[in-house]
Amino acid sequence: MKGIKVLGLENFPEVRPGDDLNCMISGAVARDLRPHDVLVVTHKIVSKAEGRLVDLRTVEPSTLAKGYAARYGKDPRQIEVVLRESRRIVRMDRGIIISETHHGFVCANAGVDASNVPGDDTVCLLPLDPDASAARLGDALAEDPGVEVAVVVSDSFGRAWRHGITDVAIGVAGMDPVADYRGLRDPHGYPIEASVLAVADELAAAAELVMGKTDGIPLAIVRGYSYSPTSGNARELLMPPERDMFR
Amino acid sequence: MKGIKVLGLENFPEVRPGDDLNCMISGAVARDLRPHDVLVVTHKIVSKAEGRLVDLRTVEPSTLAKGYAARYGKDPRQIEVVLRESRRIVRMDRGIIISETHHGFVCANAGVDASNVPGDDTVCLLPLDPDASAARLGDALAEDPGVEVAVVVSDSFGRAWRHGITDVAIGVAGMDPVADYRGLRDPHGYPIEASVLAVADELAAAAELVMGKTDGIPLAIVRGYSYSPTSGNARELLMPPERDMFR
Repeated sequence: MKGIKVLGLENFPEVRPGDDLNCMISGAVARDLRPHDVLVVTHKIVSKAEGRLVDLRTVEPSTLAKGYAARYGKDPRQIEVVLRESRRIVRMDRGIIISETHHGFVCANAGVDASNVPGDDTVCLLPLDPDASAARLGDALAEDPGVEVAVVVSDSFGRAWRHGITDVAIGVAGMDPVADYRGLRDPHGYPIEASVLAVADELAAAAELVMGKTDGIPLAIVRGYSYSPTSGNARELLMPPERDMFR
Repeated sequence: MKGIKVLGLENFPEVRPGDDLNCMISGAVARDLRPHDVLVVTHKIVSKAEGRLVDLRTVEPSTLAKGYAARYGKDPRQIEVVLRESRRIVRMDRGIIISETHHGFVCANAGVDASNVPGDDTVCLLPLDPDASAARLGDALAEDPGVEVAVVVSDSFGRAWRHGITDVAIGVAGMDPVADYRGLRDPHGYPIEASVLAVADELAAAAELVMGKTDGIPLAIVRGYSYSPTSGNARELLMPPERDMFR
């Protein structure tokens, strides 16, 4: 049987701003990593290492943030951080903010979140450039332990029309994030309609199944998945504005 | 390392209307299935076995279907089938139809598709009740080979804001389709914000990585994933209308 394995790495140490995350990851996976694996890393540890934490006590909320927070019983400082991390508000209603981040991701609260972060007044932002973070990690692993792998930086996003969140790829390096079947034919010779698979998102989702939310497993290795080792990135997973019917 | 395996079943025979699919699947997986596995089945073989195929030569397009098809160079008969499979049109523009199916799924073309179907004039619909199909398969497998598993019936859906499709669960039996962390706390004692994981969708996505679109692998076994073996269904994965900001 054709198969893949998804392996979660337990007991990874707590990551703090300024830590050399690539070195920490290299040490943690050195014995286990194989060429052509995909290493999936939850963005939270990337953000922490890169210092993408905000002490809310330093945040002066805008009038908009104060008003919206008061109306829905939210923390105005956290709303302010969400607004700052957004370049466009897609929906803002019922206490929810769905916005487009500076990277172009559309998600709740611009990816700002207070879970798995130490300190009552600290929130975590998305990495500034998750593709670059993924690429640096891939380069570091190619150097030491000397293994060529693809890297996916993941986050949990909500979806339109469906309940619950799933993990998606917000940073990709060393692989094509999509499998493009356009022009290919099915076993009946009929052109394949459902033609571009967002495989980097599916890899992130598969990794979430072993990471969970409370297990302290921020890394997973996907083994046996045959990807195209090109210089892809997660921006290819964004819907171009001219094709976006849900602005 | 904590891990899961995803195994694709190759060489599954072509499925025709009226085939006893549960028996065919039981025969194919009997040697491989273990208790607590999740069996993911692409909806296409379920639909075929259930006769959910439409011969377009029997379809008389409505005025709406004819007009829309003419404007965008589509087959008016196929558009008609999409309209019939829809209970609400969400977006209808640029030749695209995104609608809510009678089940409540929001997807392109109401899940109607012509790939992996024999015959130029045949299209495949979603199963009438994919949860019931999943439940019947789970019951059949509990009987013969006598193994209790969860079943996920999958399809590939597009997403708002993201390029490419991913597999999701449209039918679920024998497991809770979500992992609900509400009320739990992270290792820092902070309430977990991203709290309801759509794990059935993540299982479908993981299975797609071994199924592909051209490999003729309509079944995958996910082993090692610890799910809650309740009587869940895929309707729990639908966003309730009152919470849907993208009607």
